[in-house]
Order: sequence, then C-alpha cells, then structure tokens
Amino acid sequence: MTVHIGVIGTGMIGQDHIRRLTGVVTGAEVTAVTDVDARRAKEVAAGVGARALPTGQDVIVDALVDAVVVTSWGPTHAEYVLAAIEAGKYVFCEKPLATTAEDALRIVEAEEAAGRRLVQVGFMRRYDQGYRAMKRVIGEGGIGSPLLMHCAHRNPAAPESYHSEMATQDTAIHEIDTIRWLLDDEIVSAQVLRPRSTSKRFEHLQDPQIMLFETASGVRIDLEVFVNCQYGYDIQCETVGETGTVRLPDPADVWLRTAGQLRTEVAQGWKERFAAAFDRELAEWVASIQDGRLAGPGSWDGYAAAVISDATVDALHSGRVVPVRLKDRPAFYGGRP
Amino acid sequence: MTVHIGVIGTGMIGQDHIRRLTGVVTGAEVTAVTDVDARRAKEVAAGVGARALPTGQDVIVDALVDAVVVTSWGPTHAEYVLAAIEAGKYVFCEKPLATTAEDALRIVEAEEAAGRRLVQVGFMRRYDQGYRAMKRVIGEGGIGSPLLMHCAHRNPAAPESYHSEMATQDTAIHEIDTIRWLLDDEIVSAQVLRPRSTSKRFEHLQDPQIMLFETASGVRIDLEVFVNCQYGYDIQCETVGETGTVRLPDPADVWLRTAGQLRTEVAQGWKERFAAAFDRELAEWVASIQDGRLAGPGSWDGYAAAVISDATVDALHSGRVVPVRLKDRPAFYGGRP
Amino acid sequence: MTVHIGVIGTGMIGQDHIRRLTGVVTGAEVTAVTDVDARRAKEVAAGVGARALPTGQDVIVDALVDAVVVTSWGPTHAEYVLAAIEAGKYVFCEKPLATTAEDALRIVEAEEAAGRRLVQVGFMRRYDQGYRAMKRVIGEGGIGSPLLMHCAHRNPAAPESYHSEMATQDTAIHEIDTIRWLLDDEIVSAQVLRPRSTSKRFEHLQDPQIMLFETASGVRIDLEVFVNCQYGYDIQCETVGETGTVRLPDPADVWLRTAGQLRTEVAQGWKERFAAAFDRELAEWVASIQDGRLAGPGSWDGYAAAVISDATVDALHSGRVVPVRLKDRPAFYGGRP
Amino acid sequence: MTVHIGVIGTGMIGQDHIRRLTGVVTGAEVTAVTDVDARRAKEVAAGVGARALPTGQDVIVDALVDAVVVTSWGPTHAEYVLAAIEAGKYVFCEKPLATTAEDALRIVEAEEAAGRRLVQVGFMRRYDQGYRAMKRVIGEGGIGSPLLMHCAHRNPAAPESYHSEMATQDTAIHEIDTIRWLLDDEIVSAQVLRPRSTSKRFEHLQDPQIMLFETASGVRIDLEVFVNCQYGYDIQCETVGETGTVRLPDPADVWLRTAGQLRTEVAQGWKERFAAAFDRELAEWVASIQDGRLAGPGSWDGYAAAVISDATVDALHSGRVVPVRLKDRPAFYGGRP
Repeated sequence: MTVHIGVIGTGMIGQDHIRRLTGVVTGAEVTAVTDVDARRAKEVAAGVGARALPTGQDVIVDALVDAVVVTSWGPTHAEYVLAAIEAGKYVFCEKPLATTAEDALRIVEAEEAAGRRLVQVGFMRRYDQGYRAMKRVIGEGGIGSPLLMHCAHRNPAAPESYHSEMATQDTAIHEIDTIRWLLDDEIVSAQVLRPRSTSKRFEHLQDPQIMLFETASGVRIDLEVFVNCQYGYDIQCETVGETGTVRLPDPADVWLRTAGQLRTEVAQGWKERFAAAFDRELAEWVASIQDGRLAGPGSWDGYAAAVISDATVDALHSGRVVPVRLKDRPAFYGGRP
Repeated sequence: MTVHIGVIGTGMIGQDHIRRLTGVVTGAEVTAVTDVDARRAKEVAAGVGARALPTGQDVIVDALVDAVVVTSWGPTHAEYVLAAIEAGKYVFCEKPLATTAEDALRIVEAEEAAGRRLVQVGFMRRYDQGYRAMKRVIGEGGIGSPLLMHCAHRNPAAPESYHSEMATQDTAIHEIDTIRWLLDDEIVSAQVLRPRSTSKRFEHLQDPQIMLFETASGVRIDLEVFVNCQYGYDIQCETVGETGTVRLPDPADVWLRTAGQLRTEVAQGWKERFAAAFDRELAEWVASIQDGRLAGPGSWDGYAAAVISDATVDALHSGRVVPVRLKDRPAFYGGRP
Repeated sequence: MTVHIGVIGTGMIGQDHIRRLTGVVTGAEVTAVTDVDARRAKEVAAGVGARALPTGQDVIVDALVDAVVVTSWGPTHAEYVLAAIEAGKYVFCEKPLATTAEDALRIVEAEEAAGRRLVQVGFMRRYDQGYRAMKRVIGEGGIGSPLLMHCAHRNPAAPESYHSEMATQDTAIHEIDTIRWLLDDEIVSAQVLRPRSTSKRFEHLQDPQIMLFETASGVRIDLEVFVNCQYGYDIQCETVGETGTVRLPDPADVWLRTAGQLRTEVAQGWKERFAAAFDRELAEWVASIQDGRLAGPGSWDGYAAAVISDATVDALHSGRVVPVRLKDRPAFYGGRP
Repeated sequence: MTVHIGVIGTGMIGQDHIRRLTGVVTGAEVTAVTDVDARRAKEVAAGVGARALPTGQDVIVDALVDAVVVTSWGPTHAEYVLAAIEAGKYVFCEKPLATTAEDALRIVEAEEAAGRRLVQVGFMRRYDQGYRAMKRVIGEGGIGSPLLMHCAHRNPAAPESYHSEMATQDTAIHEIDTIRWLLDDEIVSAQVLRPRSTSKRFEHLQDPQIMLFETASGVRIDLEVFVNCQYGYDIQCETVGETGTVRLPDPADVWLRTAGQLRTEVAQGWKERFAAAFDRELAEWVASIQDGRLAGPGSWDGYAAAVISDATVDALHSGRVVPVRLKDRPAFYGGRP
C-alpha cells in the first residue's frame, strides 16, 4: 500500500518535501522527480533512488506515479494540477493553488467534473497542534460563538524581491485560510491599513500592514503582517468569543534565567516554527490517499484564498473596503444544494 | 505641609478617593466635602472628621481647602474645575474633564490665563507599573520607533444603562490617553468597526467594537472594546516597534495546578486590577502639590481626549474615518512656539 | 489617632522604615529617633521633623512615643524589645527578634507576663500578595492537605562578610517563618546538604546550600539558598497538596520580544521584589495599633524562628538531621491549654 | 536499506512501538513478532503483515530479522538482550535493561566482548525537545557549571499493584538516566525522604517520596516522585548553574480565558506528554542502525541506572545515604583507559 509519488519542482521546498516523504513519512516513496533545471532534478533523484523525468507532464502520466506533489514555480501550479486531475491522480499543490482566481476556479470545476476529491493545497497551519487545539475549543463551544480574531504574522526580514502585494499573496495567505477553517465561516470583505513603514525595509515596501477582514456571520479579524520585525518569526492568534478567548501560546523549549533576565528563544523561521505541522501535513495526506478519502484543504479552499487574496491586494491599492465575490459553493464542496 | 482637600461628590468613586486620601496617601487630609445628596455628604464627612458644605462652590472657596477633588456627576465637572482655577486652587478631576470639547477648551484657556498648572485629570493608567515599564522601554529605544499598538479593554458585563457611545466615552477614553502618553504622539483620526454583537449584551448596544486610531507620525492602533466578555476584566496592550515589541503581562498572584489544569484567576474589575495605580495616582498628586510642580495628565490631555472621543463617536455613527481636529497646542502645554 | 513612633537605629533599613512611616503609611508620625552615630540620628531626625534622643532607652520611655521601631544592630534587639514591653509600648522589631533563642524566649515570657500582644517581628513575606494568595488557596482547600514545599531563595551576590551560617540566619530565616505561617504547622527538624560550591563565592562560604525541613504533620520542605546566583534576586515557592499545587508566579512588569528572544527582567534585590510587601507590613502594623489588635508575626514566631535557625546551623555543621526543640506553646500564643 | 524488525512482547507498549515502526518511522518494517500469549501475537502480526513466531529466541535468530525490540515482561529482558548480542543483532530494550544489576553487568560485558555497540535502552526523555534544549544550553555554558537540579515526576494516580520500590524502579528511573545524561556526570549516592503520604494512595504505598542524589562532581539533585497527584502528568526540571538556571516549560497547546480564569490543560499521561519524544526515539534508532552507528542510551546507561536504582531502593528502606557502587567504566563505554 506504499504511495508512489512524483515531485514536480526540486527547489528548496520541493527538496524539503522529498526529504519528508523519504525520511519522515511512512507509506510513501518518491519514484519520479522533475525540474526546469534538469541537472538538479537528476541529483535529487539520485539521492533518493528515484528517476528524473524530462517534464512535469511526464511525471504526471508516469505509470509508476500514484500521486503528484507540485512544488514548482507558482505560475506553473494550475497547469500541473489540471493535468493531474485529467490523469485521475492525487495532487498535493504548494500554495498558491493558482496565481489567478480564474485558474483556481478552473481547477475547482475540473475536480468537480472528475467527481472525486483529488487536490490538496499546502496550507500547513491546519496541522499545527496549537491551531488544532484552538479549533477544537471553538468547536466544543469553549469560548461561545466567535466574534473577533486578532492575528499577527511576523518575519525577521524580507529580501528586496519581496513587494507589498506579497504581504497578502505569500504571507497573509496562511491566515486567510486559517481564519476560514478555524471559524468555519467565509471572509466577505477586506481592508488594508498602511501604518508608517519601518526604516528596516527596502524602500518600495509597505511594511507593516494591518489587514481587516469580515466574515459572513459578522466576525471581525485584524491581522498584522510585519515582515521585517527583526526579532524573529512570530505567529500570534487569539479568537474572542461570547464567553471567552483562546490564544496560541508563545512556543518555548526551555526558560533561562541569566544576566538579570528570564528569557526564551524566539524561532527565526517558519521551517523551525512549523516543523511538526509540515511533518503531519504530508503524513496525513499520504494516509488519506491510502484510505481513499482526502480530508485536507482542497480546491475550493485554494480558490477562496485566491479570491480573498485578490480582494486584499485591491484593498491595499485602493484604500477601500473591498467585497470578496466568490462563486456559490457547489454542493460537491460542502455548499448548500 | 499637609494638603487640605475638599471633595465635591461623595458617590462610589468619591468615597473611594476619600478613603485613599485618608487611609493610604500620606500628607493629605480631607477637610470638606459636598454632594447633591446632603445627607450622604454629612455621613461621609462624619466618617473622616471633615465638614459637609452645602455646595461645590462653598468647598472650592473654603479657606481651609488647598486643593479640590471633583468626583461629581460628569456634566458638572467643567464648572467646578473652572471655579477652582478662578480660585487659584489645585484641582483633581475624575474623567471626563468636561463632557464637551468646548468646555474642555475653556478649561485649557482658563488655566493658561492663570499662568500655572492647576488641573490634573484622573487618567490612572499612567500610574500602572506595567504601563510605566512599557513607556520606559519605548523611551529607551528598547523596541525602536513604534509603528503599531494592539490593545484590548474587556469588562465582564455592562449594565442596561451602558450605551454604544460609552464604549468610547467611558471605556476607550483610558486607552486614548494611554496611547498619546505612551507614544508621546497625537491621535489624528479614528474609525470604528462593528463586529457582530455578542448575544450577552442589552439589545441596544454595539458590543464589541474595534476602534482604529492613527497618530501624527503614522502609528496605527487597533483597540478592542468588549464590555460583556463574561470572563473578567482584562486589559491588554502590545506596542510594536521597528526592532521589537513590548507587552503587558497577564497579572497572576499564584498559579494553580489542579483538576487537569494549570490556571490563575483573572481580575473581575478595574478596582482590583488597578488598585496600586489608583493609590500611586493620588499619592503622586499630593506630593506634586507639596512640591508645587504638577506632573500628571493635565487640561490639555483632558481636552485632547475629549476631541478624540468626539471623533470616535462620530466614526461609530458614520462608519467613516473621522479626522481629529485639535487646536494648536499652546507653548504653555508643551507645544511648539 | 495618629500613632507617634520612635525609631531606634537609623541605618539603611531604619531610614527606609522612616521614609515609609513618613511618606507612604498614613496615620503614623516619626517623633523621635536615635542611633549609635548621634550625628546620623540628628540628620535623619531633622529630615522628618523628629527629635534625636541620646539612647534607645530614651526613645522607649519618651512620653510622646506610642510605639517603637527597632532597626538597630541585631545583638541589641532583645534588650530594646524587652524595655519596650516593660514600658508597655508596641514594638516592631526587624528580624532577628533576638540573636539567641534564650533571649527570644525571655521576650516571649515578658510579653505573656504583660498580658497583651505588644511585639511584632519584621517578617515581611507575610504581606506579599503572592504568598497571601497562596495561603488563601491552601486555607480554602484548593490543593488539599499540603504534603511538600519546594522553595528557592537566590541573591545575585553576597559580600565577603557573609558567612555560611548567615545562609540560615539572614536568608533562610524568611522561608522558615513563611513555611510555618503558610502551613499553619511547626517545623520539627532540619538537615542541610552541601552541594559543590559555586566558584563565584568568597572561599570561606558554602554556597549554595540545600535545607530540608520536616513539620509536625510530616510535610517535607526543600529550600535552595543560593546567594551568589549572579542573575538576580529570585524567590520561588511551590506548595504541593493532595489534589494540586500552588506556586508563586515569576514577576514581570512587561514582556519584550527583541533580538531573537522573549524576555522579562528579573529583580535585582529584595527592596525591589518586596517593595509592596514592606509598605503593607508597616501600614497594617500602624492600623493594628490604632485598632488595638496586633495581628502580624509576633514574639512566638520570632522565638520559633530562632530555635529553628539554631537547629539548621547545627545541621549545617554536623551534617545530621537535627531536631527542633521548642518549648510548649503557651495558650497565650495560641497553643493548646 | 529497510531495517527488518522483530518484536518480542506485544502488550501495550509493544503494540505502541509496532504502530510507530509501521506508521510513523520510515525505513523500518516489522517482520516478526512473538508473545507469551500466542493468540495476541498472531492478531498483532496479522495487523501489520508480519509473521508470529513461537518464541523470542525464534525471533532473534530469524534470518529476516535485522534488529530486535524487547518489550516483554521485565524479568525476561536480560535473557533476550543477551541472546540478541549472541546473534550479533541490534536490540532496543524497553527499560529496565535488566531487573538486577548483575544481569545488566552481564549484558555490558557481553556487548564489550562482541566488540561493537548493539544495545539501546528505552530512555526516551533524551529525545524530548525540552530536555535536548536544556542539554544544549548546559553544554554551551549558558548557565555556567551545574550545581543543582530540582525535579518533579508526577502521575495522576497509581494502581494498587504499584508499590513503594516502583517509585524508583519504574518512575524515578527516567530521571536517573536524564540526570546522568544532562550533566554528563555520575550519580554517587542516593537518599530518600518520606513525607506524610497522601490519603489518595493505596495504603501500602509511600507517596510522595523525595529522592536526593549527589554526583561525582558534587551536584545535588532533589527529585519529587508523586504518583497520585490527582491533577495530571507533570514533569518538571530545573538545572541551576553558577551563572543561571534552565528550566523545562509548562507545555500548553492553547491558553483559554473563560469563567474568571486564564488556563491551559495539563497532560494526563506520559503517552501524551512524550509522544514526540517516543517518535523521535525510534526514528533515530532506526536511522542509527542504517548508519551503523548506535548513538542512544546503551548498556552502560542501563547498568548504571540499575545500580543507582538499587541504591535508591536501599535508601528508601534504610533511611540512610547509600553510596552507588559502579564498576569502573570500561574504555569501550567511554571510560578512562
């Protein structure tokens, strides 16, 4: 019952997933890889005893490949996911599912036409122990009906290539999915505030940004995105309900008392902070394929995130409250018939 | 060098201040009191060996009164403060300094005309140990230049008489002053978001509210006001700067481990949460009178809070971003000449 | 109803108490002081408008003195306390009540003969908010019957004059009283372990030490005394009961996130850590004199602490478990008739 | 390079390890199992596609078995481990390595004679993220030279079959290994204090117990073992060094504020608390076999733990400080030549 996996894109994240599928997750075997850089593909393939194939399409249609992992350049995601659906194969696609809402919608429609769930999107926050406990508390009524969320997403520093739209597309995209999933509710509008930017950024960047979302049921969310906060990688989230609140803890391995201070180290990156979540994400994906019942974030979540992301970028540019216009959710994806 | 004090208004907060001036703060003696309820005034006076006088004006002009504490009904504050200035006496006025910005401005002008600081406003947060440590950290550059603040002000429950404007006028007014003081910056606009209201409120009330402020230097502040949060009285504040953040701790007397939980009690009201701050506020006020150098929040702070409060209430009703229009700050109050 | 106070000993702690009685505590007035250094006594007296008298005895019998504070050199304490009892005056004596158990017992007997409580000993931990909450939790059965306590008493550094016996006499003496008071139980034996000493001490000193106490009801307490811990002044205490534990929090004014760390400052000395407890101690002492009902730690507590301290020092030298041999507690001090 | 594993003993812990080797750890395959209950062995074998063999010896000598996991009844451990060494196979043995120090020593000698490391003992604390961070901090000199450790090991409740010696043999055994490993030092003596026992225990049991250890370099350790603490499974550890301390955090998935309290849940058992450590333990064991370089706790650690455990039980019975008498550590196990 080993799941044979083909990986499209052997860059940093692709290699990390290959390492996980090979050395951490049981029941999986990487059997074929490809990359635009054929030499890199070959090296990576050799390291795990897989074959390097010329193109993504070759990987997808390969007879020995049961499921595909897409970790190539973002603009190529939609094409590969559509091809995998066409081939009737499971596909795990790193975010974004597609770089345009239109492409994401094509995937939704293709999957619906295929008649069964094949697509999972790489929203790994859903596999973090803290977020899962938060969802459980909310679901059990531990804080009453949710009314508010306060979130922060901070990175120590962003490279020059990071531009203001990426604060939504690359960074807030995680919270956009997490909010929808935690609340089991849909985001209906977005607004972006522009505080004074930090002097520690590249000139062209608006950083930090405050994003404000509203959901269908009227929950309000404020999200700080600050990608040059200097001190570390820090993810905060508090959900406020009618009778209480639930909040992520500050992670700590140990507490030191030294030199006049009580202190603990802050993680410096998402790899470190969400290491266990990434492991669990792929482990559960592989297990769900073995069970034949995909359960993780799917096409519709990828599509919704794309539309909300577009609205947020629009809000950044316009300074206005921008409504999110999603298609009606098909019954196939849990919508009302 | 005992400061002889007259108290106008012997309701709950008045009696509490009298208790403090008598039993907690050294160097002060309550020598005269008054109240619209003459009988209550007499009882309170008897309890501390003071005289009960017929009117506030009588207290203010009384030869044995060095300084006046105004804890009467809000709409009467401005009149008493103006009379105290007229009489050349120090006056400590509970918030609000005045119920209209116009009246607050008249006080500012009267005090400036008098040529010396006489007025202190009851913004006791400035005397809290946590907020003071935060101000010190910011002032020492411990987090770099401030860019953002995240605040929450939660009360367990609000009575039926509490209406939506009071979320600003009675509740957020504390944060409005605290923000200005912590950042040493001026608030220039306000916006109010209306989340879905909790079912635990009286019908007429918008609760919670999210208030958004911007300062002259571009700092953005989000403030949750939630006066029916059920679980306790909870004040949160995090200031985010270019190189770090500083945050109030969760107060705890002791930590219990019992019945499957690690837990501590949350305060149930402001009296408990800010007991030490109230003590320090009056102690430092009395000491500053003895020194002849008032140092606490003054007329200009009361005026600014009134104008910002008006803008915030306007923002609640209009749904718009409302600019704060303050007079130019006179040199007397630290403005640029 | 002002309590007129005479202070014997105007060294650091004496001046600190005078400052408190003058500037922090209401209802008290320092009317006379004395010191072996007559010039210092004069200066201190002048600063607060008191009279400088030649000797402690002069202060005690002074007609304008209602109550005496003894903050002179330890070996003189017993003599002054006995004289105050003789004079029928209230006396607050800094620890130790006496430098020998015999002298402490003479005080106990003198007070009992006088027929009313006159003596309070300066065990200020009983006035700390955390310890009080702990006592309340224990008293309310919040952790069931106590079985164990884990304590630590750490100072950043000790001077050369600090010797190994002082770890008990000057340092652990606070825990000795606190344990008895928290548990409402008597210490019956002491043992001292000698870990490898820190290289950061003066050569002659055993530091750290682990003290082990047992109470009459069988509760076991371990106490780390470490007076050269370098990093700060840190007091820890956890009481373990049949159904749970209760623990002092780590004090924090604010939390910083900066330079890869989440941190707060540790206090550097007992003055800072227990500032509020010292204020409350003297305020409640003065108030209890006004009420005519002394309620703080008294002669018997001072005597018991002295006997337990002797046993602990004996245990340090002998390496044995040393029994504590107290007289039977007289009914006057709450013992069984 | 899949490691084929034979499991001896398919009780609770055996099944748990089989689940891990099959569903969590990559690179391993359970190929043969056995149990005294042949029917249970068959069922478990069927569940993972392994063969059920009649005896442990059959498993050990099976040609398809590369490495053996011993999770049978404690008294049988030594025999199986010796047989595995004899067969030249890697063997992972749950604690205890042997029920007598003599048997443990026979294993040490057999492995030394075999000339290469084959044995790993199931001390999973070494794989916990917190303990690892603590060891790293100590190793980097973050707290200076260690002087003290304070530990607590609490379980919610112990069954009637749990007797006083098991507080050492089954419970403290984990700390005994952890202390040796964290400090890289040897325990040279043990003492046990007997506090009043909790009323929540079975009559025959001494619970809690305070164990006191000393190391060769003079570090003193106090360890509370309390197996009926009622509130949860709670592991505490603080190491105190010359310049600071390092302490395990209180684990928390989320923090709730509700009903007047700020709280988080305490784990209820070791499976939950150390789930990630167990995963990592087996994963690293399998990986180290693939590398041919065993790195986890070995025979010598199992032998030392057995001798220290014996001394501690002796100390419990005698009330004395009992010296630990280990053989000289052979060079093969890192001892000095």
